[in-house]
Amino acid sequence: MAVHQVTEHRELPPLTKAELAARLEQVGRERYHHRHPFHQMMHEGRLNRGQLQAWALNRYYYQSRIPIKDAIIVSRSEDRDFRIAWRKRIVDHDGDRNSDGGIERWLRLSEATGLSRDRVRSGEGVLPATRYAVDAYLDLVRNRSFLEAVASSLTELFSRDLIALRMGALKRHYPWLAGGLDYFSARLNEAPEDAKFAFDWVAEHARTRAEQECAVTALQRKCDILWAQLDALYFAYVEPAWPPPGAFLPDKV
Amino acid sequence: MAVHQVTEHRELPPLTKAELAARLEQVGRERYHHRHPFHQMMHEGRLNRGQLQAWALNRYYYQSRIPIKDAIIVSRSEDRDFRIAWRKRIVDHDGDRNSDGGIERWLRLSEATGLSRDRVRSGEGVLPATRYAVDAYLDLVRNRSFLEAVASSLTELFSRDLIALRMGALKRHYPWLAGGLDYFSARLNEAPEDAKFAFDWVAEHARTRAEQECAVTALQRKCDILWAQLDALYFAYVEPAWPPPGAFLPDKV
Repeated sequence: MAVHQVTEHRELPPLTKAELAARLEQVGRERYHHRHPFHQMMHEGRLNRGQLQAWALNRYYYQSRIPIKDAIIVSRSEDRDFRIAWRKRIVDHDGDRNSDGGIERWLRLSEATGLSRDRVRSGEGVLPATRYAVDAYLDLVRNRSFLEAVASSLTELFSRDLIALRMGALKRHYPWLAGGLDYFSARLNEAPEDAKFAFDWVAEHARTRAEQECAVTALQRKCDILWAQLDALYFAYVEPAWPPPGAFLPDKV
Repeated sequence: MAVHQVTEHRELPPLTKAELAARLEQVGRERYHHRHPFHQMMHEGRLNRGQLQAWALNRYYYQSRIPIKDAIIVSRSEDRDFRIAWRKRIVDHDGDRNSDGGIERWLRLSEATGLSRDRVRSGEGVLPATRYAVDAYLDLVRNRSFLEAVASSLTELFSRDLIALRMGALKRHYPWLAGGLDYFSARLNEAPEDAKFAFDWVAEHARTRAEQECAVTALQRKCDILWAQLDALYFAYVEPAWPPPGAFLPDKV
């Protein structure tokens, strides 16, 4: 993607930091997965328990790869201060010997939907398209430029609003899920700090317009990655509700 | 290396844990860099200040890559408990916002030799052969099997004795270095815990004789990597004392 952007924007002056922020916010408004019909159904209380189980199970695969993704990013930095700041994300998700992290909290959310943690952890029944999208994320942070790797995390600029909305909606529409929402309350605190660090880093290190466009495109790619996971869920479990061979099947109620 | 080992050892029964430990210890006795003439000179007080500067400067490149190496290993594990245990190494070397790590302590050691920290951090004057050897280490942990990546860290089984010996020798022969030895005192505590975890992990996960031989070979490769760095130092700064173009040159005394 970079080559095209470099050519197109070579002549343009760099955006100011505020302009860059506005461009990124625009990507969020247009492409972040809060707009996906699967999430809209979730927030309107129109998903059934089996669909929420499929969501929790598939999204666990994403969650389980987050510390791997962040360790890749840490391993690509030669700047100790950057590594220390980014290491926080690994800690947030993996936790510590004595404290839970996001992965454990997601398992508890999955249990609240009625799935066993062993079933979720096994990865059995995860949609192939979920794996492809998540693995594309690892590929992006491993093989694209370091700027793109960092910029791809900027979806966290948008996650706070979505999480706040979602927590209210989940409590209201699916009260039986209420005991499993710790993941989201933790992210409400963690994500904004991470997003600020990443945005400041990108704003400082994307100096030319071409580099800034590269960062914007990386954020779009990340939005695509989140969106594609919901497309796959929708196709398999909502409409036409045709899960591929081997995929998770909710118990008949 | 793995292919050859697999063929050769396919028919042999696995070593017991004690036998595996003995094989690894044997590698240490024969190949660890405590036997290298550069280190022998160091411990006998026969290095001058310029040679110690060259050592500190070049070894800083190795130190600066250790958290990168460990983040690669963390990024390759799908096991949260493993990642948490291994993350400790990144913390030990990078430190935290409020506490120094091994890299900072190595900078202080370098300063004690009379070098400025900026000069050391810049990487200017590092021997090309140092970079090749260290980069080969990153290549090993990134591209070889995960077992080999973990086993390559087992040089820490031997580091405690070397460090204990070295601290005494450095204090005795180079008293002007005494203020810079915090790196080694910290490693005296850190390394044995790390080595125990890594050895237990290797013993548990190398189940066939072929896998065990693979782990032994990975440790040999790591010993080679440490040894090659000292060869380069010896050639450039001891005998024939012919540093390549662009390499660090001690100030004339």
